[in-house]
Amino acid sequence: MTYKLTYFNFTALGEPIRFLLSYLDIDFEDNRIEVEQWPSVKPTIPYGKLPLLEIDGKVLNQSTAICRYLAKKANLAGSDDFESLLIDIAVDNFQDFRLNIISYWYESNEESKAAKYVKLVDETIPYYMERFENIVVENNGYFVNGKLSWADLFFIGILDYLKFRAEIDLLNDRPNLQALREKVLAVPKIKSWIEKRPSTVDIA
Amino acid sequence: MTYKLTYFNFTALGEPIRFLLSYLDIDFEDNRIEVEQWPSVKPTIPYGKLPLLEIDGKVLNQSTAICRYLAKKANLAGSDDFESLLIDIAVDNFQDFRLNIISYWYESNEESKAAKYVKLVDETIPYYMERFENIVVENNGYFVNGKLSWADLFFIGILDYLKFRAEIDLLNDRPNLQALREKVLAVPKIKSWIEKRPSTVDIA
Repeated sequence: MTYKLTYFNFTALGEPIRFLLSYLDIDFEDNRIEVEQWPSVKPTIPYGKLPLLEIDGKVLNQSTAICRYLAKKANLAGSDDFESLLIDIAVDNFQDFRLNIISYWYESNEESKAAKYVKLVDETIPYYMERFENIVVENNGYFVNGKLSWADLFFIGILDYLKFRAEIDLLNDRPNLQALREKVLAVPKIKSWIEKRPSTVDIA
Repeated sequence: MTYKLTYFNFTALGEPIRFLLSYLDIDFEDNRIEVEQWPSVKPTIPYGKLPLLEIDGKVLNQSTAICRYLAKKANLAGSDDFESLLIDIAVDNFQDFRLNIISYWYESNEESKAAKYVKLVDETIPYYMERFENIVVENNGYFVNGKLSWADLFFIGILDYLKFRAEIDLLNDRPNLQALREKVLAVPKIKSWIEKRPSTVDIA
């Protein structure tokens, strides 16, 4: 089978997919679109959004759905339906958090953008990060049931980008999330991906 | 097992869960919070958002994850991993569409809100609805592979609320989506739910 991932030259929503493809030891084409190419690419793709994964030419959008599919192949999607549910909940909580950061970043009204940033830093980031830290404490160092799942890979995969956009060290005073990050980045297949991946502006 | 759904007195994100619980013939407590109660409820729940489903007292948030879990029990979540992926993609495409409508609705700056509404009506709604209509044509009257899945129940479940917020008949000139709506609402367990559900402002 052939795998072609099309995304921008960022980590962001592409990176959890790259993590999972690497974890699965799948050779994939890592097609990175430059910002200048985007206006000509956008009208040609299903819902005008990236990332896209093409598996044997079948064009698939929606990064969360793609990650879940790859995670099943990697046995990282839960050992029963209830565990899968807990993983899905964790990932959608990350997505809500991400949307708050993105909503600030893409705000075009300068006054609203400044107000959103204050709320983000003073309220939203501490609110979510405190909860994420506590979940990892309650689950023995992982997001769900004390073992590695795609929730962990997803969160650590998008973290650099969120930090880059929020311009804040999200893991400051979150020792359990810091330890989770180190564990995920030490997984051999993830480690070799990190060593060979292209350098991008959103990586600290 | 006991099931308690907590949501506002709207259809919106609660209704796909109510559809699936009804489809499964599960007796559930349909706990509806009035808007005035919300400020006192919000701080007491996991991420300050509804809906929540409590299964035997276990508190679960994230409506998409909950629907997927219930859909597996109902055999509406795909017959293999690839079909499940296509269903998940369809649902996340609906969520992107919903977020566009919500982003207009909750915009606090009046000027930005007016501009968002124009874009919503002239661009976003036709863009998504045309694609949704075409998918149903290509898939013999359903969203995925010519058979009923939770993607159909999810879409039809939130449709009234989206129409209410957008103040537009989203199914105008979309005969295949209209036919899908009629099919879903004619499923006996869904039909009896619709007949007995409380009347809310967002139901046409």
